Amino acid sequence: MRRTITGFSNPTVKFLRSLRDKKHRRQEQRFLAEGLRLLTDARESGRLPEMLVMATGREAHPLLAALEADVLAAGGEVVEMDEAILAKVTGKDNPQAVAGVFAEFDTRLATIDRNSAKIWLVAQALRDPGNLGTMLRTGDAVGAGGLILLDDCADPFSVEAVRASMGAVFTQAVVQARWEEFEGWLRAAQGQLVAASLRDAQDYRRAPYAAPCFLMVGNESRGLPEAYEIACDLRVTMPMRGRADSLNAAVAAAVLAYEALAHLDG
Amino acid sequence: MRRTITGFSNPTVKFLRSLRDKKHRRQEQRFLAEGLRLLTDARESGRLPEMLVMATGREAHPLLAALEADVLAAGGEVVEMDEAILAKVTGKDNPQAVAGVFAEFDTRLATIDRNSAKIWLVAQALRDPGNLGTMLRTGDAVGAGGLILLDDCADPFSVEAVRASMGAVFTQAVVQARWEEFEGWLRAAQGQLVAASLRDAQDYRRAPYAAPCFLMVGNESRGLPEAYEIACDLRVTMPMRGRADSLNAAVAAAVLAYEALAHLDG
Repeated sequence: MRRTITGFSNPTVKFLRSLRDKKHRRQEQRFLAEGLRLLTDARESGRLPEMLVMATGREAHPLLAALEADVLAAGGEVVEMDEAILAKVTGKDNPQAVAGVFAEFDTRLATIDRNSAKIWLVAQALRDPGNLGTMLRTGDAVGAGGLILLDDCADPFSVEAVRASMGAVFTQAVVQARWEEFEGWLRAAQGQLVAASLRDAQDYRRAPYAAPCFLMVGNESRGLPEAYEIACDLRVTMPMRGRADSLNAAVAAAVLAYEALAHLDG
Repeated sequence: MRRTITGFSNPTVKFLRSLRDKKHRRQEQRFLAEGLRLLTDARESGRLPEMLVMATGREAHPLLAALEADVLAAGGEVVEMDEAILAKVTGKDNPQAVAGVFAEFDTRLATIDRNSAKIWLVAQALRDPGNLGTMLRTGDAVGAGGLILLDDCADPFSVEAVRASMGAVFTQAVVQARWEEFEGWLRAAQGQLVAASLRDAQDYRRAPYAAPCFLMVGNESRGLPEAYEIACDLRVTMPMRGRADSLNAAVAAAVLAYEALAHLDG
């Protein structure tokens, strides 16, 4: 279906604006992704928005035309609106802006097959949506199965996390679980839990990584809780030559993931 | 000197607020760092603020007391103000906030000794202050000499970059230069320029890294200009197993830096 919105007070405008807020995303079970590149990545990964939003009279683009056709063929909506109304929705003054509304994915542990990939990334209480999106992007690059978010993490469906993922939110599995639930699931089958740690740790270059390998990083300020580190099968340590003894969480995950990939590959 | 500010229109309040703006930072040759932890890191690295700012009646803290004593001993100012005025300065409603005003460092190429470290990080047209700060933090962790910013990068002295560096802005050298200037300087002595590239590149795990090794990443959207890639002594490639063919710039720099460290170490 195709329709045009002419008023600021249209309920669809309110709905779209509400998706910037976590509470409303959860109520609606929907999230926003912005930009033609991101929407094209989603489409190429087999994910179409339920609703595609753009300015009336937006310049034609072959990728946009393909997206529109697919959304309409799948029974979705293409919604056009004045530039001024679109700016209110996207928060940006860009008449070329495009946005899509997607149904949130099922993020339960039960949805993933741990043996579908050698590497999985795990983040505990990660608060920064940019770090979260960056971890998804790194997961895509190393061929990980997905990102498992433990305890109270930033929302993987926020506009910021989706943007920082550069489309990887559509290719990587995203799981949300409490630690107890994750630990029970992990121990019910084969799987190696690994964290960077200073506690009784091995050199990360020489550690015996084993697939499926779950690489875990902790909160940006506090790191991992002690009990989580102790529960790991493997604790590894990376050189820290400076004044500080830590890396950005997404950086630490990436250095570990590339190291594990070199060991598990082939 | 110790003084108390009671009015919102005090020139010092205006001066402090102006430092959130790049143009004013450049004019004043000063920048802001916020938070007791960051200021303590700076102090431990031998950098004291010219002015230390806090709320009147802030709770006592031994690290703050040490900082105050050092600032006063060095001829600096300790400035106290109402919580409401402080909130206007920091943009945060936190009566425990502390901020310091630092003189900007000399960021010319001439200030660094390339042989003082095996690894140097180089960023070209990096736009995100968070990425810039994260690269400084990674540089600290791998024992790099510093971060060389080429062309139009984000400001390393912005509040966001300073915060993301987690204090590494005080331990790593920060250089700002145009490409032509950098290339001339680089080629005037020994130094290996390395970039991640798909062009005629070697496996990043087996590449012949050599100190002093300059690891370069490009702009978040466009990557490195072709001419810069061609000018490299070594082009390396990392596995890209996913849909995308790139990593976050700060992540790519970190994976390369840890790999180079393992080769150059010892």
